[in-house]
Amino acid sequence: MKKEKKSKAMENSEEKKNKDELKCEIRALRERLLAQQQKLMEKKLPVIVLVEGWAAAGKGSLIGEVIREIDPRFYNVTSPAVLPEKDERYPFLYPYATAIPENGKIMFYNSGWMEGAVHKYLRRDITKKEYRARVSEVCEFERQLRDGGYLMLKLFLDIGEKEQGERLRRQKKNYETEWRVTEDDLWQHREYELFKETYKDFMAETGESVPWHVLNGEKRKKAVRDALRLLVELIDRGLEEGRYVGKPFKEKFPLIDMPKLSDVDLSPTVSDEEYDEELKKLQKRLGELHNLVYRRKIPVILCYEGWDAAGKGGNIRRIARPLDPRGFDVKPIASPEPHELNRQYLWRFWIRLPRSGHICSFDRTWYGRVMVERLEGFCSEDDWKRAYNEINEFERQLTDWGAVVLKFWIHIDQDTQLARFNDRQNTPEKQWKLTEEDWRNREKWPQYETAVDEMLQKTSTENAPWHIIESNDKKYARIKTLRLTIDALEKACEKHIARGL
Amino acid sequence: MKKEKKSKAMENSEEKKNKDELKCEIRALRERLLAQQQKLMEKKLPVIVLVEGWAAAGKGSLIGEVIREIDPRFYNVTSPAVLPEKDERYPFLYPYATAIPENGKIMFYNSGWMEGAVHKYLRRDITKKEYRARVSEVCEFERQLRDGGYLMLKLFLDIGEKEQGERLRRQKKNYETEWRVTEDDLWQHREYELFKETYKDFMAETGESVPWHVLNGEKRKKAVRDALRLLVELIDRGLEEGRYVGKPFKEKFPLIDMPKLSDVDLSPTVSDEEYDEELKKLQKRLGELHNLVYRRKIPVILCYEGWDAAGKGGNIRRIARPLDPRGFDVKPIASPEPHELNRQYLWRFWIRLPRSGHICSFDRTWYGRVMVERLEGFCSEDDWKRAYNEINEFERQLTDWGAVVLKFWIHIDQDTQLARFNDRQNTPEKQWKLTEEDWRNREKWPQYETAVDEMLQKTSTENAPWHIIESNDKKYARIKTLRLTIDALEKACEKHIARGL
Repeated sequence: MKKEKKSKAMENSEEKKNKDELKCEIRALRERLLAQQQKLMEKKLPVIVLVEGWAAAGKGSLIGEVIREIDPRFYNVTSPAVLPEKDERYPFLYPYATAIPENGKIMFYNSGWMEGAVHKYLRRDITKKEYRARVSEVCEFERQLRDGGYLMLKLFLDIGEKEQGERLRRQKKNYETEWRVTEDDLWQHREYELFKETYKDFMAETGESVPWHVLNGEKRKKAVRDALRLLVELIDRGLEEGRYVGKPFKEKFPLIDMPKLSDVDLSPTVSDEEYDEELKKLQKRLGELHNLVYRRKIPVILCYEGWDAAGKGGNIRRIARPLDPRGFDVKPIASPEPHELNRQYLWRFWIRLPRSGHICSFDRTWYGRVMVERLEGFCSEDDWKRAYNEINEFERQLTDWGAVVLKFWIHIDQDTQLARFNDRQNTPEKQWKLTEEDWRNREKWPQYETAVDEMLQKTSTENAPWHIIESNDKKYARIKTLRLTIDALEKACEKHIARGL
Repeated sequence: MKKEKKSKAMENSEEKKNKDELKCEIRALRERLLAQQQKLMEKKLPVIVLVEGWAAAGKGSLIGEVIREIDPRFYNVTSPAVLPEKDERYPFLYPYATAIPENGKIMFYNSGWMEGAVHKYLRRDITKKEYRARVSEVCEFERQLRDGGYLMLKLFLDIGEKEQGERLRRQKKNYETEWRVTEDDLWQHREYELFKETYKDFMAETGESVPWHVLNGEKRKKAVRDALRLLVELIDRGLEEGRYVGKPFKEKFPLIDMPKLSDVDLSPTVSDEEYDEELKKLQKRLGELHNLVYRRKIPVILCYEGWDAAGKGGNIRRIARPLDPRGFDVKPIASPEPHELNRQYLWRFWIRLPRSGHICSFDRTWYGRVMVERLEGFCSEDDWKRAYNEINEFERQLTDWGAVVLKFWIHIDQDTQLARFNDRQNTPEKQWKLTEEDWRNREKWPQYETAVDEMLQKTSTENAPWHIIESNDKKYARIKTLRLTIDALEKACEKHIARGL
């Protein structure tokens, strides 16, 4: 092949021209981004920019260049570090899910879920099976955010093996930067080929909802230009098309058959003597088990839903009594606050998850989405219809982490509710428990019953099943919940022991 | 001495009678507490219960007994563990200050700042001098909360050396509880006398704003009764007297003389050539220093205050440019959200503090208290007058931690502001930066100037001085801020090296 020969001077002048052009382009893109930021806020669109890539590829400085002109009110940068496995007390997605931006803002992830999954896998901190689970969780996470209206850009900053080696050596030599080169970076460099293949596979498997863009990190200015262009185009499209609302899709979870609420026999009771005796015995056992799950770092999540005045509070208190408050928490869920409404609906539950080894009772839960939010029109039909599957995914992410997830529907009939409402109304120290809203909700009993039936059918999965707790007799209900909880904790401990943990 | 002799049967029957009485008392107190919880919410009174005491004294189970009947919507338990010193990336008070309850709620601290200070000191993780500083910080922290309307109860659960030994041995023998006995617990037991003395001293030194109550942990039921009684009485007093607002008190900080704003010469400028050259040089140096402070884990807090349109944003961006976003953050401070208004006013800044080694720019700060909140009447006169000293204390807590705290007042004159407002109004892409509020604030220039002058006089401390940045020429202002920042970081690094760190 004949290669055209240029004089050195000509080459230089061309390079200079290209460089000037690039500078111009970058400046123009920055101005467009600047003009977009205010519109993003007006249209309340949240943006996620994930920046993954090789060690020493320049992820940090790329982000620095992209945000250079943006007003700090409009963006944030998070750097969820890869933690040593022993320090991980939360689910895999936790550091990413808790950091999502609120409406109108851009969040840059300086490394994220790709590094979190790949690194741990290649380090053999997690098994192949666990890695596979993380890949699925990533797909779910990205789809849920996209469907929830998040604009997402995923970048991979690529550099060759040789270039990486040179950069690491250069950083090593400089006193100010040598500490930045970690053992893990050097290990990655030695295992460059292995990483390369795994990154490639990861991208192939996680490109469905949100595509990957590979940028050449060896050409820094071009990479900045490309990142800016992709971001500006993404936001333009988002502003033009308006907030995206994902469509509901087919369930893929094996479900447990649940009875209809109207078919539930609410007559079971327990005698006072049996109650006192059983309660004492069961609470003692639960206290013992709490020590075991704490020690084995098994997270336990108890979800309470049920009719107003069904007895959720008293039920939770009977569970709480034998538990050491250092390892037990109740999370009362009220209406979302403004900063919660400004994020994907599961966010306010992600941030309330317990550390592993802790037991947490949610007094009302994420199921508000398919009950009150559905019935009061606080979200669109697509939103709540999509939520069944999203919630099943969320709970499977929790059980993947090793959590015991139990869901209790505390059930009473309408007559019992009325009697308890009247009792509350007539007892001064109970009056605060009864609000106008409770009466309004009561009028919508049939609609709620339909919604609850659908919820029970669609979200009682094998890993996180629903239990209907007959609570016309509160004492019976308490004994039943305690037994179910004890049973689940015993099984979890046995499984743990069987797995040699 | 003649000791009265009782028959065994008589003794037993008396004991039984006492036990029954105690049970009755506890039940009655629980009911009173139950009746109080709703009133606490109505009157928006926050309550802090600190439970300190010996290892194995039963702090957890005491809390469990106290909260037994309270609705989970009204309380929370936090267990800020004692972290190994090397993992401490935040100021001493951070885990306690970030956990304070919102109005209407009770927060139980299962061990807290007493353990945090004493333990670290006896372990020799901190020096005597650092320990002394922590004792002062505790006094400040408690006074500030009390003055901010928090009801506080401080309990110390006491057990004797012999009893502690027996309990630890018992726990050790039982498979379910043996893991609870840590090396530190055993060490405390071996050093019982040393701890006893230090606890005693600590209580003597920190009882001024909020008194200590020592409960006998060897009599469990009595301790529960006493804790409940103290809590119920505290809340009763609080409900009766209404929310307490602390009085301002005499400054005790050595202050730096500051000029009045009207005396500041705003004429300094810089030529474009000098600016370009200096900017490049200074940014390069700042980038190098960022590596050093990151490595040495020195926290850096840059506080920006100034007139609207003074050029805060552009100034911050020039600082940001050379910094790696992994270690740099801008915290834009807008009006407080409801969950922020429901807590002591410094809380929303505590939760935004950077980790050590990180640089953080606050775009507006806690000084809102003595400017906008003062002028708009968002707090009482006592509140903002007290704030000068509270803020000085807060900043000294930050510098005690090792932080570099720099405060910039970005200063312009009224004519310059008007010109910039007009420019914003006439430039479409800048219009969002100008609000009705900006015009309203402009009308209050004289009142603001008085407030700012007072603020500069009263809060320019040696450890956290104010710098007035002449910003009629924005470029001059940027160079000056960069130089001041570089200067402070260089000094901090030198000090670090000199101390052999």
